[in-house]
Amino acid sequence: MREAYHVELDELAGNLAKMSAQVATAMETATKALLDADLALAQRVIGDDAKVDDARAECEEQAYALLALQAPVATDLRTVLAVIHAAESLERMGDLALHVAKAARRRYPNNALPDVVRPYFSEMGEAVVSLARRTEEVIKSRDVDAARSLEADDDRVDEIHRHLFSVIMAKDWEFGVAAAVDITLLGRFYERYADHAVSVAKRMVFVATGKMPGYGPGDDF
Amino acid sequence: MREAYHVELDELAGNLAKMSAQVATAMETATKALLDADLALAQRVIGDDAKVDDARAECEEQAYALLALQAPVATDLRTVLAVIHAAESLERMGDLALHVAKAARRRYPNNALPDVVRPYFSEMGEAVVSLARRTEEVIKSRDVDAARSLEADDDRVDEIHRHLFSVIMAKDWEFGVAAAVDITLLGRFYERYADHAVSVAKRMVFVATGKMPGYGPGDDF
Repeated sequence: MREAYHVELDELAGNLAKMSAQVATAMETATKALLDADLALAQRVIGDDAKVDDARAECEEQAYALLALQAPVATDLRTVLAVIHAAESLERMGDLALHVAKAARRRYPNNALPDVVRPYFSEMGEAVVSLARRTEEVIKSRDVDAARSLEADDDRVDEIHRHLFSVIMAKDWEFGVAAAVDITLLGRFYERYADHAVSVAKRMVFVATGKMPGYGPGDDF
Repeated sequence: MREAYHVELDELAGNLAKMSAQVATAMETATKALLDADLALAQRVIGDDAKVDDARAECEEQAYALLALQAPVATDLRTVLAVIHAAESLERMGDLALHVAKAARRRYPNNALPDVVRPYFSEMGEAVVSLARRTEEVIKSRDVDAARSLEADDDRVDEIHRHLFSVIMAKDWEFGVAAAVDITLLGRFYERYADHAVSVAKRMVFVATGKMPGYGPGDDF
């Protein structure tokens, strides 16, 4: 019984890691679609989003079945619940990649981004995709230190995000309100995506340590 | 055993309903702070957000204890898991009210909103607070029809949100990029808040019917 249970639990974590890989690829492709005004890439992300939603529904069903049939306790229970939460965050990351792809499609054949802000989005894209790929590793390894190291990348994303605001709100901004609105929303999609990646990593720390980081004073990372 | 279990489950649903009331009040107060550039109200929302976070942590702990000690199955298991998900959405709604309050504070003593868009935010505020208050009712009643009726209000919020974009992107927009950026983000906060309220209601439908609306073709509401 316990044996079968741990096989199922490993399978569940494996599916979650696969979801991380899916949403990393989605955001990588969406960013390329955005930077290059590439309609085919945007369509691919938009078409693939249903797969992420399906993967999430499958993870959740698997987790529910585990809870109902095996009634896990202690660390095992925490792991299953962490998977349920993480699957929700990962689905949301897929949605955010979808939003980026839709923004690229909406402005096609124009580029949604004026040249002056392209480097920021290129860097934010790389940072958040790296976050998602390392989240995949954390799900596999449950390495607490690796999870904590995600925080630095998230800080970098927040920094670029803040800087973007100063660029579009500067007096010499010459690309008008519509571009500023696009950039505002796009910046927020990347920032939220990074937050969700960190939240998945935090859940995995919770699994490994039994303590949820960020829920008590001094307990943040 | 079962008896005690149902008492605890009712208590858990009661705490969730209380969280709904908290985040409804938070958004109501934040909207007033935004519309009237009222710093004291904004500060109140900002100061109270920790209470929502605490309530969520408490709901989650209570749900974990229930799962570990009672190992519920079938509808009972679904209910506990729905509560865990709903508590996460409700905490997020509290965060979004916090963001609105912070936007009001950031622009104080100025008003963050030009007069021309105030009616839209006034109406969006009323619609989303009404959504949260009705979500509270749905949590208490588990009334499937009441949950479905939330969809119409959510559509109304989406409609105002879309219209806002056409206002700020119009050629005769005269309030500059900074105001447009504020309005873009604020509009998104209200729209996300409404989405989360609907998602909580959907979870409650899942509890009552065993089917998650929006997970299959034709199953959306």
